[in-house]
Amino acid sequence: MPASSVVSVIPLEGLPELEESDDLAVLLHAAAGRAGGLEHADVVVVAQKAVSKVEGRIVRLADVEPSDRARELAGEGGDPRHLEVIVRESKEIVRSRPPLVIAETRHGFVCASAGVDASNAPGEDVLVLLPLDPDASARGLRERLARLSGVDVGVIVSDSFGRAWRQGTTDVALGVAGIAPLRDLRGTTDSRGRELRTTQIAVADEIAGAAELVLGKARHVPAAIVRGIDVRGGGSAAELVMPRERDLFR
Amino acid sequence: MPASSVVSVIPLEGLPELEESDDLAVLLHAAAGRAGGLEHADVVVVAQKAVSKVEGRIVRLADVEPSDRARELAGEGGDPRHLEVIVRESKEIVRSRPPLVIAETRHGFVCASAGVDASNAPGEDVLVLLPLDPDASARGLRERLARLSGVDVGVIVSDSFGRAWRQGTTDVALGVAGIAPLRDLRGTTDSRGRELRTTQIAVADEIAGAAELVLGKARHVPAAIVRGIDVRGGGSAAELVMPRERDLFR
Repeated sequence: MPASSVVSVIPLEGLPELEESDDLAVLLHAAAGRAGGLEHADVVVVAQKAVSKVEGRIVRLADVEPSDRARELAGEGGDPRHLEVIVRESKEIVRSRPPLVIAETRHGFVCASAGVDASNAPGEDVLVLLPLDPDASARGLRERLARLSGVDVGVIVSDSFGRAWRQGTTDVALGVAGIAPLRDLRGTTDSRGRELRTTQIAVADEIAGAAELVLGKARHVPAAIVRGIDVRGGGSAAELVMPRERDLFR
Repeated sequence: MPASSVVSVIPLEGLPELEESDDLAVLLHAAAGRAGGLEHADVVVVAQKAVSKVEGRIVRLADVEPSDRARELAGEGGDPRHLEVIVRESKEIVRSRPPLVIAETRHGFVCASAGVDASNAPGEDVLVLLPLDPDASARGLRERLARLSGVDVGVIVSDSFGRAWRQGTTDVALGVAGIAPLRDLRGTTDSRGRELRTTQIAVADEIAGAAELVLGKARHVPAAIVRGIDVRGGGSAAELVMPRERDLFR
């Protein structure tokens, strides 16, 4: 078995509880050093919440005045202030069953609560929002990691999303840098020369999901290295969003 | 870095073009031997198409008489015989834009074409259907592999599914044996003692997606070992299907 064909998922452990303005690239570089160091073409997957915390994407519920719309979406069981923050982060409410909301975020992602989350938030009654521009967050980390480590790595900012029709969440890519998020099989043929029906594979989402296997949300492991799959290229996580006109489920 | 915390995805290479009644467990065991052998708590991920071929889940288009419904679903661009097979494999057509069909399969999975696929099919004008009972297929492989290798492994039968709202496919679990497909975080707390909002993680789907990273559909790599994550337990891929009454997108 050639070692090069094996994909490894290596947790980046021992990071502190993150706060606004922490230098995440330095912390990730140090954690990677403890794990043997970064290698050329590695993909570093970083949990969205870590990125959002250092970028200050935090809202205190005490500072939020809920609108009538938020009270309506909260129903009996929800906190109207939490729903107000979700509404502000949403371009469109796609479905609602109070207090559950599926929304399209400012970035075009369709997900629960527009990505607004209270778990692992840095304090009581505090919500963590998605980064304003996760591709830019990924690019920033990639450039700093390249300077710190001297190697060219890809970066994915990931989050746990639910899915239509299936139970449970899987981690997907919200932001990418230095990688092609889709593997395009259009024009390639199968082993019998027949054109492949499945035209594009969302490799960035599969890499994010593979990283989640070692992230363990309840411990201090906000990132992982995925090594052994060369997905270098240019691209944006926007490529992973189904264009509205092609989407049968909007 | 403790080696035990790293997850490895190891391709199982060198299998022949599969045919009905091939002994897939023996072929997988031999391929695993070439890759260093199976280890306790490994998860063996096998592409659905490999399983379907050896189980004879094959239809020849020449043998199919299309119904009016199939002609309608085929529209201008589709083959009515192909659509007829999709209709027969479907419990319900969820969405249609000819010749594209999103259907609920006999198993309850919602996916394109009810899982009916022509790529990598064993011959011209031949379609491959999903296994009749992918959990049973996984159980059968698991029992044979345990006997051949002497170690207790989990098995996942995987397939590439599209998603609502997102571009590209990711591999998910259609059948499982010896593993718990969902990691249930209900009742666990985050690092600050707050209950986690995300209650269940679809680890079987993340493992299937991680395996896809090395499968490479166009080459003869129909399976992979995922090593380093202990998901042993009992369960069925039916747990990964959102109950209809909770599904906001049906």
